[in-house]
Amino acid sequence: MIGLFDFILPTKIRYGAGIIKVLGEELALLKAKKIMIITDKGLVNAGMVKKITEIIEKEGMNFILYDEIEANPKDYNVEACAQKAKEESIDTLVAFGGGSPIDAAKAVAVLAKQGGKARNYQGKGKIKDDCLPLLTIPTTAGTGSEVTFSSVITDTQEKFKFTIKSTAIAAKTAIIDPELTLTVPPSITAATGVDALTHAIEGYTANCTEPIAEAVGLYAVEYISQNIVEAVKNGGNIEARDKMMMGSLLAGLSFSHADVASVHCMAEALGSIYDAPHGMCNAILLPYVMEYSLSAAEFKYARIARAMGIEEKDDFKAAMKGIEHIKNLSKKIGLPGIKSLNVNPEDFELLAEMSVKNGSNESNPREITKDAYVMLFNKAYTDGD
Amino acid sequence: MIGLFDFILPTKIRYGAGIIKVLGEELALLKAKKIMIITDKGLVNAGMVKKITEIIEKEGMNFILYDEIEANPKDYNVEACAQKAKEESIDTLVAFGGGSPIDAAKAVAVLAKQGGKARNYQGKGKIKDDCLPLLTIPTTAGTGSEVTFSSVITDTQEKFKFTIKSTAIAAKTAIIDPELTLTVPPSITAATGVDALTHAIEGYTANCTEPIAEAVGLYAVEYISQNIVEAVKNGGNIEARDKMMMGSLLAGLSFSHADVASVHCMAEALGSIYDAPHGMCNAILLPYVMEYSLSAAEFKYARIARAMGIEEKDDFKAAMKGIEHIKNLSKKIGLPGIKSLNVNPEDFELLAEMSVKNGSNESNPREITKDAYVMLFNKAYTDGD
Repeated sequence: MIGLFDFILPTKIRYGAGIIKVLGEELALLKAKKIMIITDKGLVNAGMVKKITEIIEKEGMNFILYDEIEANPKDYNVEACAQKAKEESIDTLVAFGGGSPIDAAKAVAVLAKQGGKARNYQGKGKIKDDCLPLLTIPTTAGTGSEVTFSSVITDTQEKFKFTIKSTAIAAKTAIIDPELTLTVPPSITAATGVDALTHAIEGYTANCTEPIAEAVGLYAVEYISQNIVEAVKNGGNIEARDKMMMGSLLAGLSFSHADVASVHCMAEALGSIYDAPHGMCNAILLPYVMEYSLSAAEFKYARIARAMGIEEKDDFKAAMKGIEHIKNLSKKIGLPGIKSLNVNPEDFELLAEMSVKNGSNESNPREITKDAYVMLFNKAYTDGD
Repeated sequence: MIGLFDFILPTKIRYGAGIIKVLGEELALLKAKKIMIITDKGLVNAGMVKKITEIIEKEGMNFILYDEIEANPKDYNVEACAQKAKEESIDTLVAFGGGSPIDAAKAVAVLAKQGGKARNYQGKGKIKDDCLPLLTIPTTAGTGSEVTFSSVITDTQEKFKFTIKSTAIAAKTAIIDPELTLTVPPSITAATGVDALTHAIEGYTANCTEPIAEAVGLYAVEYISQNIVEAVKNGGNIEARDKMMMGSLLAGLSFSHADVASVHCMAEALGSIYDAPHGMCNAILLPYVMEYSLSAAEFKYARIARAMGIEEKDDFKAAMKGIEHIKNLSKKIGLPGIKSLNVNPEDFELLAEMSVKNGSNESNPREITKDAYVMLFNKAYTDGD
């Protein structure tokens, strides 16, 4: 039996190469009068933010720029940003960037209206409907955050990543334009691309998944696995960028309606302690978690392998080849191993403890304990570069 | 390139066996004070409508029952129903049934608020946002209408089916409970099941489709093709009913975000002239349209075949086997051929003319003319029982 589930998509999606031109029209529909653009300094310095400020200026709309969001967005980032939004009587947020500015903006959407600290909004029902309207514009093909309902924030006191989740903080509108990713450097294309692949695989296989999330997750695997190498090697190829962006969107739709699982539990622990790029952490851990979970997800892993182009009738063999394929893919696109993060094996106990506490731990297709997490961190460390 | 597209889902979906129990809660969220249940006499006589009136009565909510909707809902059905809704100051519509009551209710949603005749609302931008809120409860696995934005109404003067379409007439909430289909008789299970299969195939292959619609359409083919025989032969099997209902939902999500194509153009023409059951018309015509369109959709038809369980590497051979499989499936579930509709071959010219005028004609993967439609009607007639 399929079981009970709800499916709600609060975000209007506008997709395609060049679609950024509708930004003014969409902001007008949101009745935006005073806009805050939430982004990071890297995008400002790269001249990317101009692509949207020019449109907003042309529409004669009022806006301020907030570019203080750090990678793995911190509690103090979103609290300061929300304070600024209140002071400036902002009525509409525009998040522009990768997962960090978009996740931060979702937390700002609630804090600016409902006050308090981000960590107070963990758990069901804590976020009320009254949030600032948010329009999201992703500049990487990876996060999926432009259409998800969750925001992952780092608690800097406790050194722990936590998630707040509600359809109320989801974007009202997502403008998803693959042309914005044409200049993303290869290393980021690679890490964010494997992040999207992880979303697709975990969304498709999570314990709590349902058929709509499965369908888009499995389809995402095709788009991402068949285009990631080209997008990394030849970033100017708009066709490959288009398909990666689409894969990231499909994967975002998948995991937001299901969940992520143990890869994310481990990656968020790594990210909390070492402030390491999220996509890279996922890429490092994905094949090891898949090896562990295989016995509980053989059929689905076989389908994932076939979606990546592997022709093998036997499910177990197909699944094994799929995991191998993912390892090779990571190498082919130049992703470094776990040692590049300067991890200390003495931390594996702590990291495992954090992983087991993660809200998505229960969603892993195979049950997993703290000891198993320690084993997986060790395996990734021993195997990896 | 994928091209530009929008994706909006105005309907909150609540799915699962037994989920009908949330009806009161969902009506309360819609702030329903005076409800009109739109259904047909068949469902009243079968005692099905009691399943929802009991819940609404228990909640102490006010409602009236409108059960005058005919199959292939007529313009005068929806106009009379809208008149009644106005007279009774109805604030919320509940559509309960197959495609006919649900399509009718969507037209009533606009007519009751914006006046006039249903045919006046054809074409983009004619329907304003101010419609009565609608909650849909499908009782067949086929229509998908519970989540689509369109309503197909028969113009009884012109003997022509026309479509009105807007996210404003889509359901606010769809409660999709496969238990409601347990008593659907085999002939209706068969016809509505192939209707859903047609939605999936046309949604996946329509010229204007996009990857989200493709993903759910292709996945729907699996659910429907692998469960339709069991659902027809053993209607009490909730597992098969569950998967058919899910397939119908996935297919509805697919074609509403893409379009249907020439099977529907022809089926709607047949339905207009002979008042024939829509699902049966689709079932009769589907394989012939696929044979015609094969040269323009070989790869996708091959994937459809593989989703139905056909193992064949060569795309052309797989596609051909898939079409054969669909013909056999229709026979296996006892669907009659075109002659059972008492069609007159002298009408084929007129039917072809109506097909070419259908709004979905442009969406067929292979371009199609009036002459080709005549040829296809003839072929279906010569081949069929």
